[in-house]
Amino acid sequence: MSDDITQQKQTAVNWFRSLRDRICAEFETIEAEFAPQKQTPVKFKREYWQRTDEVTQADGGGGEISILHGNVFEKAAVNISVVEGSFSEKFRNEIPGGKESDGKFWASGISLITHPLNPFVPPVHMNTRMIVTAKKWFGGGIDLNPIFPNDADTTQFHDALKQLCDRHHPDYYPKFSKKADDYFTIIHRNIKRGVGGIFYDDLANDWQQDFEFTKQVGQCFLEIYPEIVRAHINDVYDESHQEQQYIKRGHYTEFNLIYDRGTRFGLMTGGNVNAVLSSLPPLAKWP
Amino acid sequence: MSDDITQQKQTAVNWFRSLRDRICAEFETIEAEFAPQKQTPVKFKREYWQRTDEVTQADGGGGEISILHGNVFEKAAVNISVVEGSFSEKFRNEIPGGKESDGKFWASGISLITHPLNPFVPPVHMNTRMIVTAKKWFGGGIDLNPIFPNDADTTQFHDALKQLCDRHHPDYYPKFSKKADDYFTIIHRNIKRGVGGIFYDDLANDWQQDFEFTKQVGQCFLEIYPEIVRAHINDVYDESHQEQQYIKRGHYTEFNLIYDRGTRFGLMTGGNVNAVLSSLPPLAKWP
Repeated sequence: MSDDITQQKQTAVNWFRSLRDRICAEFETIEAEFAPQKQTPVKFKREYWQRTDEVTQADGGGGEISILHGNVFEKAAVNISVVEGSFSEKFRNEIPGGKESDGKFWASGISLITHPLNPFVPPVHMNTRMIVTAKKWFGGGIDLNPIFPNDADTTQFHDALKQLCDRHHPDYYPKFSKKADDYFTIIHRNIKRGVGGIFYDDLANDWQQDFEFTKQVGQCFLEIYPEIVRAHINDVYDESHQEQQYIKRGHYTEFNLIYDRGTRFGLMTGGNVNAVLSSLPPLAKWP
Repeated sequence: MSDDITQQKQTAVNWFRSLRDRICAEFETIEAEFAPQKQTPVKFKREYWQRTDEVTQADGGGGEISILHGNVFEKAAVNISVVEGSFSEKFRNEIPGGKESDGKFWASGISLITHPLNPFVPPVHMNTRMIVTAKKWFGGGIDLNPIFPNDADTTQFHDALKQLCDRHHPDYYPKFSKKADDYFTIIHRNIKRGVGGIFYDDLANDWQQDFEFTKQVGQCFLEIYPEIVRAHINDVYDESHQEQQYIKRGHYTEFNLIYDRGTRFGLMTGGNVNAVLSSLPPLAKWP
């Protein structure tokens, strides 16, 4: 594999796109399995956007939003993007290698959320990305956000992530799962957003190995999440469960709008609003 | 009227409480007028909270949340509070007179929001407060947030506010209505939260006159808003109007969690979460 940065960028972009295609296909398969007879299978709808950002100069790129409204996933959004530009004078100092690159950056990634209809099917969030300034690194993670956490799912989920991490470095799981725990906290309510997962950033050991790890995060998602969904797809629920689901989604909304760095960064720097806010729930309640 | 600060604080607290009582009574009257026959009239429920705040020392006070879930108001919250404490070293420099008071502050106020059931009855927000550091001042405002703005309501609403302002100073209406326009902007969507109103802060000309103005803001609310509610209480709507209402409420949520200074200040300084977030809609959608 070439060390050439242009080649590396293209390789990462191709991966994010192919992962997006596989995840969308898998979600559509789940929808088809669960669809009422004779109903046309539910499919993702795709929307394209071009980067327009007053904050940066020499902007370029854009992204693709894929949204599904189905019988299993009340809303699922799978976004990919490739953007480049120049951070403001102020912001570049906060980003690794931003000062040394005169603010120039390139970034590509995949980001997805689900808000399942059945309150017993847990929502999930996954995101992986490659960023280039004067430095280059990977970041991302997966976290599970059940309305009604159960030990079996939580254990299965964390075991899969631990196995994945352990294949790469013994420090990864303890470090990245703690980072997820710390990050996904709704501070003003003194609660966690969900049951955690892994969250990593500034992964810049060896491009090839870091890329391999990032790929396996995506593959791990495809192995573990659909299984958890199928395990609960027929769980019986009533209005009181739904009420709790809507309230929990309200808390999720609070986290994303108040604390989530990606969301706030996207909104503050003129990112595409539909893409940035596609994580918000289809229906939420604050009774 | 005494110039004594203790007396002034008590006078303001008494006013906010009596205004709360009058507003709650008026909302309950509207609910009774509109209630289906034989249904028990809907009443406000009250919840008390005590200030517990790790950020400040020498804390005291608390507040009362009054919430109604009715047939006209899907949710209405009317909150009053009296709090005192000491701002952190960092925060005191951002507040007028905060440095000179060694961070000590006292504050009391009333804050209300409505989320009406009928999409043609406009939501409203009103807040007035008195704050004391080494300085003392009043602040507050009213703004209307219709899902479907109509010129008659908007004109009636702004005319009433202009008349109120003009009785006090010719600069007030132009200045305070512009401040509301500027403030209630959902920057990332490049839209206004509603049709504006008035917003004022640091009003510290003459305590008696400023208090009189603040009282009249409350009285103006009681004159104008119930009239607008009654004008639309029987407007016919369908699911498509409701859908737009829920989406607009999503935008309202975005404003409050991302931009609203009171909300963010409350959450960041350990304010009572139920009181601070009582402004959020009973049901919102991000399709």
